[in-house]
This record gives sequence, structure tokens and C-alpha cells, in this order.
Amino acid sequence: MTDTPRVTLAAIAEEAGVSLATMSKVLNGRADVAPATRARLEEHLARHGYTRRSATQRTEFVELVFHELEPSWSMEVIEGVEEVAHAAGLSVVLTVSGDRHAPGAEWIDGVLRRRPVGVILVFSDIAAPYREKLRSRGIPFVIVDPAGDPSPDVPSVGSANWSGGLMATRHLIELGHRRIAAITGPEDMMCSLARVDGYRSAMNAAGLPIDPELIRFGDFHPGGGEARARELLALPEPPTAIFAGSDLQALGAIAAGSAAGLRVPDDLSVVGYDDIALSRWMSPQLTTVHQPLRRMGEEATRLALRLADGAGVETLRMDLATHLVVRGSTARLET
Amino acid sequence: MTDTPRVTLAAIAEEAGVSLATMSKVLNGRADVAPATRARLEEHLARHGYTRRSATQRTEFVELVFHELEPSWSMEVIEGVEEVAHAAGLSVVLTVSGDRHAPGAEWIDGVLRRRPVGVILVFSDIAAPYREKLRSRGIPFVIVDPAGDPSPDVPSVGSANWSGGLMATRHLIELGHRRIAAITGPEDMMCSLARVDGYRSAMNAAGLPIDPELIRFGDFHPGGGEARARELLALPEPPTAIFAGSDLQALGAIAAGSAAGLRVPDDLSVVGYDDIALSRWMSPQLTTVHQPLRRMGEEATRLALRLADGAGVETLRMDLATHLVVRGSTARLET
Repeated sequence: MTDTPRVTLAAIAEEAGVSLATMSKVLNGRADVAPATRARLEEHLARHGYTRRSATQRTEFVELVFHELEPSWSMEVIEGVEEVAHAAGLSVVLTVSGDRHAPGAEWIDGVLRRRPVGVILVFSDIAAPYREKLRSRGIPFVIVDPAGDPSPDVPSVGSANWSGGLMATRHLIELGHRRIAAITGPEDMMCSLARVDGYRSAMNAAGLPIDPELIRFGDFHPGGGEARARELLALPEPPTAIFAGSDLQALGAIAAGSAAGLRVPDDLSVVGYDDIALSRWMSPQLTTVHQPLRRMGEEATRLALRLADGAGVETLRMDLATHLVVRGSTARLET
Repeated sequence: MTDTPRVTLAAIAEEAGVSLATMSKVLNGRADVAPATRARLEEHLARHGYTRRSATQRTEFVELVFHELEPSWSMEVIEGVEEVAHAAGLSVVLTVSGDRHAPGAEWIDGVLRRRPVGVILVFSDIAAPYREKLRSRGIPFVIVDPAGDPSPDVPSVGSANWSGGLMATRHLIELGHRRIAAITGPEDMMCSLARVDGYRSAMNAAGLPIDPELIRFGDFHPGGGEARARELLALPEPPTAIFAGSDLQALGAIAAGSAAGLRVPDDLSVVGYDDIALSRWMSPQLTTVHQPLRRMGEEATRLALRLADGAGVETLRMDLATHLVVRGSTARLET
């Protein structure tokens, strides 16, 4: 970095005849230094190229970037990031930018100016030129990546999407369901593909046919779940169970079932994905795949801080386990 | 402020023989200035008491402070703040601190060091010594205050809690209910009291007796709603309708109803409060009082930015309207 100070703070404190603690207070903009002393010490600092910004800014924030804020889902990631940042004495800058694949072009200028300790990106990947810019400024970044397939040299924290799809589908098969549909996220997101592959493997392992009509790609919102479920339930041979791509989609699927006169779980079983905090307060309580969103936020922040400290990090890619939580929205198929 | 620069940036640019634009780039830490030039210009800036921090920091962030992050509710406020901040070219620093009444003691030191353009506090009030500290540093603050009763000189954006309580209760009375219960937030929060007073006024206006047994204070979480509803439904003469203090509480009340073998709305009507995004995706869809949380975040941020600009502001207190949204969780009492 071009503006890294060359003289240590301790040396400047000695030169100014004050303690390192006092000099540090001035550098950090603390209020408990007399104005005259502060002015004198700031001159010493400035002479050696110390600007308050380069010192305090780099130790004060982590930046968390989303392409959209979505209740429940985003909040759990935010909570995880905030907790680890707070414990490290850091604030969290929250930025919304870009689309689901990458942050917007204006973001990169902003973040280089803001100089966070580290950046947590909730995106599939980050373009190579942006990676280079962040690296050249010494700003580490980690992708929280339930959705993506980032380059191997990009630090990321994801979760076991394939296993999640497998477990959800196997559960429905064990309940006697044969016509099992999968509604998932956009087809260009790796997490969608991984979950559907898990679904396919479970169907294959049970010797069940895979009907392409029963696999639908949508978005992760309730409206997407409702629309896809409505199509599925209107098929000549509708499914008796739906594996949804998110808890929000599952809510939409349950609404579509209600509108078609079907009760969940008696007439239609629905499995969600994520296990957001509200899923156990829905009626019926959602059977769902637990994705450790909060822990993904925590681990990503810990990884970014370790990288910021220049610590050696053995693995840049971490996939946290998912597990099935069986509640009230799935039931044995009555034949 | 002790470190406000005394010489204008234009004068320093002239002294250094560069354009104001170049000088501004250096001050803002932009990358597109040659290192040697930058170093020279930083010296000029430092000599006149310009540190990068005091300039860029004060134009880059608004700080949003919660005592807890709660899915749905907090996220809607965050979205409103983020949108207005983003439009103004500002980032959002998200901080979690303190209890529901006030931010923690460590927060005030942090925010004075961070120097946001303005602070949005989601708390009932802010203690006078903190107000003074923020004012003395020229950091404006606004309370987003669905919960409080702040001092008259504290800028705040709230919503019409009393009307909300009145409308919800009147709706239930119009559906023929007579035994109507109210579950609300903590008794020491003004919003709880205002809503219950609205409930009382509606009951009085309809000539209905107010049974103190039917008024319960709890917390705003689903678990609180469930516990209070369970008590109410176990009364010798249980209510046929419940006005809940939040949509989350309403979910808890519906769960308690289910556990007691009651269907909503056929056997028990439930009105929520807030109208979070998910409330129309619940089964049944929630009848609820719409609280414009997102707009409250927006207006609070606009007010903070106007104060930061030194603009005259006519009213420091703004209460946004609430309105009733009738959906599927309330029905006519069958007698």
C-alpha cells in the first residue's frame, strides 16, 4: 500500500515525549486527550505519514455485501457476522449492491475508499479484476456462498447442498411418497443444481423414476414457490410431496395447496430449506433442511479476520453440514 | 470540533499547484493519483490539519443501532435506511448494542470515533449525556421509535400505535366478538401502553366491559405470544379473539390455538401487528395492523441527513399512519 506509515507509533510517541497509550488514543480519535496535546501529537503523526484514517479505518469495520436484503435469510447471516465482528471490536458496514452473481461496479471504488478490515460477500463469486484490486490493497474477502461455485483460490464458506437435497428427498420416500416434486432456485445457481442432484440421487437409489415435469426452477421467494406449486398441482398426475428450495418457497407451496383445497400434511407433504427462525412457528411447523446460515456468517468473518491478521489459513473453502429437521409439514402417504 | 480544518481545500489545492479535483481525490483516498503526487499532496493536507479520516469518514456512513436484530421487523427498518443512505452515496454501519431502552456505554465511545454523518437509533430514547456528546461533535441522531416516548427535543419517527390498537379491536367487535383479549409488548414500552389504550377505547366505545384478565403483557417474540395465549385459552371463560402485539406474537397465539384444538379463524380470531412481509404468506394469512417500518427507516434517515446538512427542520417528531389489513385470520363470531 502506498500510504503505509514507515515509522512505528512507539517511535513517534518517544519523539513527542508521550506514552504509546496516549499516542494511540490520539491516533484513534479518542476524546480523553486535552485539545492542545492532541493538536501537538496530531502534528507529529501527520509528519510521519500517519493519518487517522489509515490507522483507525483499517481496524474498525468489516463490510458485508448483499445483492438484496431478504428477511429471515439475510438477517441470520448478518447476525453471525455482527457477533464475530463485535467480539473483535469491529463494526459492520452493510452494503447492498449488484445482482445475485456479483456486486455492482460502483461498489469496488467505494470499498477501496472505505478500507474495511475484511469483506464478506454474499454472492456466487467475485470477478477477477475486483479480486485483484482488493488483494492489491490488502483487503481480504470471503464469500458466503450457499449459492455458488467460486474459483478455487477464493476463500468461501458454503453448506452441504447436495446432502440437503438427498436427505429431504429420502425422508419423503421413507414416508411412502413416489410422486415427489422438487422446486428449487434459479438454474444458474450452483446450490440449486447441487440440491436437485441430491434429489435425483435419492430417487435413483430408491429405484423411483425421475419425471422431468416434477422438477421446477424458480426463485427463492414465496411467490415463486406458490407459482411453481400451482403448476405442479395442476398436472394430470400431481405430486403428493414437494421438496421446496427455501422455507419461503415452502410457504408459497403450502398457500398453493390451500388454494387447491389440499391440507398440509394430510393431502400434501412439503419440505422446506434453510430452517429460518420462523419455520417452527408456521402452521403446520415446517419440516426443513437446516442450513447453518448464522454459523456461515460467523465462519466467514473469522476467516476474513484470520486473513487480515496475515495468519496462515490451511483451507480456503469450508462447507458446513446441513441436517434434516422433521416437523409437521410432512406425513406418511395414505394409500 | 477540535480538529475541523481551518483552511479550505481549494486554497490548499492552489498552494500545491493542483486542481481541486485532484486534491479531493487524495483526500478521499482514491486510487487514481500517482503515488509520488499523492505523498506530496498528503503532506500539504496534513500541514493544514486535514486528516483523511475527518473528511471522508464524515461523508461516508450513517450508523444504524439496534439492541437486537430480529428477522422481518429489523430487516424492514434496515431496508428503509439502506435505500435512503445508498441514494445519498452513503454506507450503513450496523451496530448491535445495549438493551431495548438505550445503547450500551461502549457504544458512545465507538460512535464518536467512527464519526458517522448521522445516527439512527432503534431505541425508546437516548440518555441526556449521550445526546450532549453527539451534539458537541456535530453528529445528528434520530430515533426510530415505534416503542418510546423520547424527550420533545429528540428527533424521532414513530407510528400511530394508539390508532392501531383502536382499529384492530374495532374490527374484532364488528365481527361480533365480545370476549376480546390483548397480548402486547412489555409494560414499560410506550407503544405497548398506547396500543392497549386504543384497545380500551374501542371496547368502551362499544359499551363492552374490560376484563383485566384479558390483557397480558409479554414480549414481541413468537414464544411470548404462545405462552400468553395458552394462559388466555385456559381461562374459565376464554376469549374468542386475540389482538396480538406483533405478527410474531400472532404466530405464537395461532400455535397455542392449534395445540388447544382450535382452528383459526373458525374457532379463534387473531389480529397481528406490523404487517411484516411474510404475514400474507402465513396459513391463514394474517389480519394485521400495518406499521410502515420501512418508511419509518427511510424518514428517519432523511431527517438525519437534513440535520447533518444544517437544514432547518420544522418538526422533530413524526408519527406515520398505521392501517388495518384484513386477511384470513379473523372471522365473524358464530353464535
